[in-house]
Amino acid sequence: MCFAVISLAENTEMVNVVTERKAEESHRQDSANLLIFIMLLTLTILTIWLFKHRRFRFLHETGLAMIYGLFVGIILRFGVHLPQDLNDVTLTCAMNSSPTTVLVNVSGRFYEYSLKGEVRDSKGHDVPNAEMLRKVTFDPEVFFNILLPPIIFHAGYSLKRRHFFRNLGSILSYAFVGTLTSCFVTGLVMYGCVVFMKVIGQLGGDFFFTDCLFFGAIVSATDPVTVLAIFNELKVDVDLYALMFGESVLNDAVAIILSSSIVAYQPEGDNRHTFDGSALLKSLGVFLGVFSGSFAMGAATGVMTALVTKFTKLRDFPLLETALFFLMSWSTFLLAEACSFTGVVAVLFCGITQAHYTYNNLSAESKSRSKQLFELLDFLAENFIFSYMGLTLFSFQHHVFNPFFIIGAFLAIFLGRAANIYPLSFLLNLGRKNKIASNFQHVMMFSGLRGAMTFALSIRDTATYARQMMFSTTLLIVFFTVWQMMSFFHCLLLKSHYLSTEWDYLKPFLTHSGPPLTSTLPACCGPIARCLTSSQAYELHDEDTELILNDGSSLMYSDMTVSTDAHGMPTSQAGLYSLAGTSDDPLDRELVFGGTRLVLPTDEPPDPLTSFPPPPPSPPLSDPLRHRV
Amino acid sequence: MCFAVISLAENTEMVNVVTERKAEESHRQDSANLLIFIMLLTLTILTIWLFKHRRFRFLHETGLAMIYGLFVGIILRFGVHLPQDLNDVTLTCAMNSSPTTVLVNVSGRFYEYSLKGEVRDSKGHDVPNAEMLRKVTFDPEVFFNILLPPIIFHAGYSLKRRHFFRNLGSILSYAFVGTLTSCFVTGLVMYGCVVFMKVIGQLGGDFFFTDCLFFGAIVSATDPVTVLAIFNELKVDVDLYALMFGESVLNDAVAIILSSSIVAYQPEGDNRHTFDGSALLKSLGVFLGVFSGSFAMGAATGVMTALVTKFTKLRDFPLLETALFFLMSWSTFLLAEACSFTGVVAVLFCGITQAHYTYNNLSAESKSRSKQLFELLDFLAENFIFSYMGLTLFSFQHHVFNPFFIIGAFLAIFLGRAANIYPLSFLLNLGRKNKIASNFQHVMMFSGLRGAMTFALSIRDTATYARQMMFSTTLLIVFFTVWQMMSFFHCLLLKSHYLSTEWDYLKPFLTHSGPPLTSTLPACCGPIARCLTSSQAYELHDEDTELILNDGSSLMYSDMTVSTDAHGMPTSQAGLYSLAGTSDDPLDRELVFGGTRLVLPTDEPPDPLTSFPPPPPSPPLSDPLRHRV
Repeated sequence: MCFAVISLAENTEMVNVVTERKAEESHRQDSANLLIFIMLLTLTILTIWLFKHRRFRFLHETGLAMIYGLFVGIILRFGVHLPQDLNDVTLTCAMNSSPTTVLVNVSGRFYEYSLKGEVRDSKGHDVPNAEMLRKVTFDPEVFFNILLPPIIFHAGYSLKRRHFFRNLGSILSYAFVGTLTSCFVTGLVMYGCVVFMKVIGQLGGDFFFTDCLFFGAIVSATDPVTVLAIFNELKVDVDLYALMFGESVLNDAVAIILSSSIVAYQPEGDNRHTFDGSALLKSLGVFLGVFSGSFAMGAATGVMTALVTKFTKLRDFPLLETALFFLMSWSTFLLAEACSFTGVVAVLFCGITQAHYTYNNLSAESKSRSKQLFELLDFLAENFIFSYMGLTLFSFQHHVFNPFFIIGAFLAIFLGRAANIYPLSFLLNLGRKNKIASNFQHVMMFSGLRGAMTFALSIRDTATYARQMMFSTTLLIVFFTVWQMMSFFHCLLLKSHYLSTEWDYLKPFLTHSGPPLTSTLPACCGPIARCLTSSQAYELHDEDTELILNDGSSLMYSDMTVSTDAHGMPTSQAGLYSLAGTSDDPLDRELVFGGTRLVLPTDEPPDPLTSFPPPPPSPPLSDPLRHRV
Repeated sequence: MCFAVISLAENTEMVNVVTERKAEESHRQDSANLLIFIMLLTLTILTIWLFKHRRFRFLHETGLAMIYGLFVGIILRFGVHLPQDLNDVTLTCAMNSSPTTVLVNVSGRFYEYSLKGEVRDSKGHDVPNAEMLRKVTFDPEVFFNILLPPIIFHAGYSLKRRHFFRNLGSILSYAFVGTLTSCFVTGLVMYGCVVFMKVIGQLGGDFFFTDCLFFGAIVSATDPVTVLAIFNELKVDVDLYALMFGESVLNDAVAIILSSSIVAYQPEGDNRHTFDGSALLKSLGVFLGVFSGSFAMGAATGVMTALVTKFTKLRDFPLLETALFFLMSWSTFLLAEACSFTGVVAVLFCGITQAHYTYNNLSAESKSRSKQLFELLDFLAENFIFSYMGLTLFSFQHHVFNPFFIIGAFLAIFLGRAANIYPLSFLLNLGRKNKIASNFQHVMMFSGLRGAMTFALSIRDTATYARQMMFSTTLLIVFFTVWQMMSFFHCLLLKSHYLSTEWDYLKPFLTHSGPPLTSTLPACCGPIARCLTSSQAYELHDEDTELILNDGSSLMYSDMTVSTDAHGMPTSQAGLYSLAGTSDDPLDRELVFGGTRLVLPTDEPPDPLTSFPPPPPSPPLSDPLRHRV
């Protein structure tokens, strides 16, 4: 049965003209929609400049992008009342299936149509501007195929390698065991919540245990960006940084594959949505298969790029070199997707491999070109996602906000995160020489922001009631965690009036150094202060002297404390030095100390894939400085 | 009437799973297709490196990309025989119109489908791999909305400004009057050809006069890239360079708007496809309106960016600055498209404005970042288009190769180009102090390559017989002109065995300097040699001495000839110096001459939109060097 709701035009050519005009109109509309986002990003950039210029450093641009997106969403929803486009030519066919391709036969010509997605309010009368709002919405796959890859690649490419590999065991534990734990704990709590809602009659549709697990998986992906940008500015302890960054980068990968494995968990026959051992095993197999496949593919492309850049003299032509680097990195994504693995995960491991091997083969110009290119892409993609997120809160038309579910979700992610961090840290500390201090654990507990990845995973499918409720709740969780973090830092920063002291003020909170928070925070914050101050802070408080480096904020030295003698030179035994991350540029390893210029050697073993020997180590200048380098 | 050709699944959920699998399959296929192109580009890069490494400099990468595309097209067409995907779920509805949106009602759920385009061989049985070949084809709008803008922006952004503005009158004449002349001459010749074909019964469908004019418009867009890349390496005369570059950049804009105005030329009522004065006037109005609107929009966004970068201290944060620069430039495109102007044209003028004003306000890092970014985007987009072009020759399934039309087209573009260059040059020379020499005119005549823009314009609509024949012919024209150029240079270069002499060998061909070609080319080339050698070449042959600059190929000095005295210092009167293009970076204006470092001042007037005063002029070192600077 098929019924057309259009007035049929009388001749084909006329129809063609009409179709062309419609296509033009649609293109105009698309351009205008994209323009809204470009304007939002431009506004964000200008505001963030203003904030940086006036030294309001606490507000990360993603937060701003989100707020602006929110405003535009409100305006589109409630402010502008556009006339409904009643002339839209639509064709309604009643069918029993939704194929991906529809062929429409118009006077003997075939036109192909591709599936865009489900439309809920096909009438569009219940929500004002429904048509407009629907048009501002992007295909969710845009996030996965265009916006996430540069973000994830950049995260992998800028992993601080030395400390990353030093903490690899712990990072992998948090990322794998921790994320799995968090997913199941969150899923179980949510299942309890859903059962409770069903009992009191608050559930408006189906919500299965697999849905709960899916929710657990998507909210277990912590954001490597927002909180770490703050960490970076604050120059926190390098091990804490490595743990947080490594965990949040890798748990994105775990969460993606976990969520798709849960979707693939489809018990056979009549046992659907109940427990099925073989289906569980199959899901586990899918998880391991997809993970190792994506990993292998990413690493292989990275290694291949390294070999190509090693054995050709492509470095004589930086443009060609950068283009090759970009294309090879992109091809990882496409290759993995074409082989049914996960492109985003492959891109992550490709980024890590490229940073570890290929980077050393690149010419100086290509190094800076590739860094700058991916930095820019990351910046744009990330801010785009966050402003889209803000907009979606009002423009998405199928929100299901359920207070019980929302409260349950906040409780669940809190418990899930706790079940990830504390028991694992305890177990890891049994084996670690360099223990993860309890205040570090608290920071990790509360810094588990949910960001772009959680959003992208939750918007991917909003067809069912369960998914819609999850999406709405996820959006609130992302908003809340980002704002909570910002306001927390804001609160801390407001207490320190001058720029020169504000970092010092935060240091005790995020590192071992003093003064202890108990002595600086107001009395009402007593319990928090005690919880976040490490025992070392009390001990080291009066002893350590900070070494001022000649770096800008882009240099990677952090947390350098060296005891000096009366002449300002480091004493031989008491020095404590740690280098956050490695830089292959000798300029980055250079520091001026007491008028003497020291070039710090790299201590990584030479790689067989790297064509250039490491620079010769500088003569030993002062033992304490090289203590841990 | 609507008939489903699928076996209808029995419950909705099952259908959803099937739909999801289909969507995945289609995504996998898309990734694989894109991967083919990425691999092609990678291969092109590696080959071009090999060629550069072995000093085969004549072959531009676009030519290579095209050849590789051609091979892949042949393989896809004849080599691989993939099984037909018979399981594709398709739905056929017989309708009298092709709406842009189709709503399909599946058990009460509405799914939205968007128009992808017309499918000719819906059966796919006549051509092997038809399904596969169809899938490799991109939406033609991708070229206009994604690939052309960076190419055109980069062309505008890298316009060599000093010589561009010095030759502005001539450039505008060639671009406007010349392109219009060329369009009409080509159109008329083609109309004659088409009438002839109709008489002898060789025409397989409708071909109206407007189609002929449309063809004239699209083949009048000459490529600013390929031949100029060669010019750039050869360091030809700066005025010739400026004329060629300016003309080919601007005539792209003219051709786009001209072709869309011709499409808009739609006489009313029954007089369709015959002459109609009011419709012509309307078309002219559209042309002028769209051109001035696009120009104004591009210039306005450029000026706005200049003002923003002037009045904020955004330059302290190069990442923000580059991001803003990128977003503002992109927003020009979207803004113009959203207002029904032409985005590509707006982007061109935005690029020119950005280079003229904003560039001076940027920080040094942003200058290099933005240059490198757009250089990379341009490189990738251009090579993508050329490899796609190569592939299309075999993958496009509706080619109409008609030998009469093809021969007519080659004759027509030859005559059209001649009618553009020679009469205009004659008229312009009446007013120019610095005459356009006749060998320059010949070079302009034969360097009118057709490239990316012609291709993008012709692939935009391949629905009718006329458009298909035009597309096939255009493809051949692009191939021929690119290959002709390459083989011509190849032929010249083969004669000069050593790198050190090959440029000298080409110089007489492209500049006024000697030795005259008549004495160096073999006897068989006598007429060509005489035609291309200017009278100055005979005179200057024995006198000029070349100054070796300390530049790389990236520096913009060219054609510098200074007479020196016995000590290697320039003599006071005989010096002749010309600077090709301007660079605001003092390092680019620096040259070492006889052990003395000279910094050349810029002579452009300070712009009111530029916040920084020009660098103080260096003390006058030697008069002849500053003669024409």
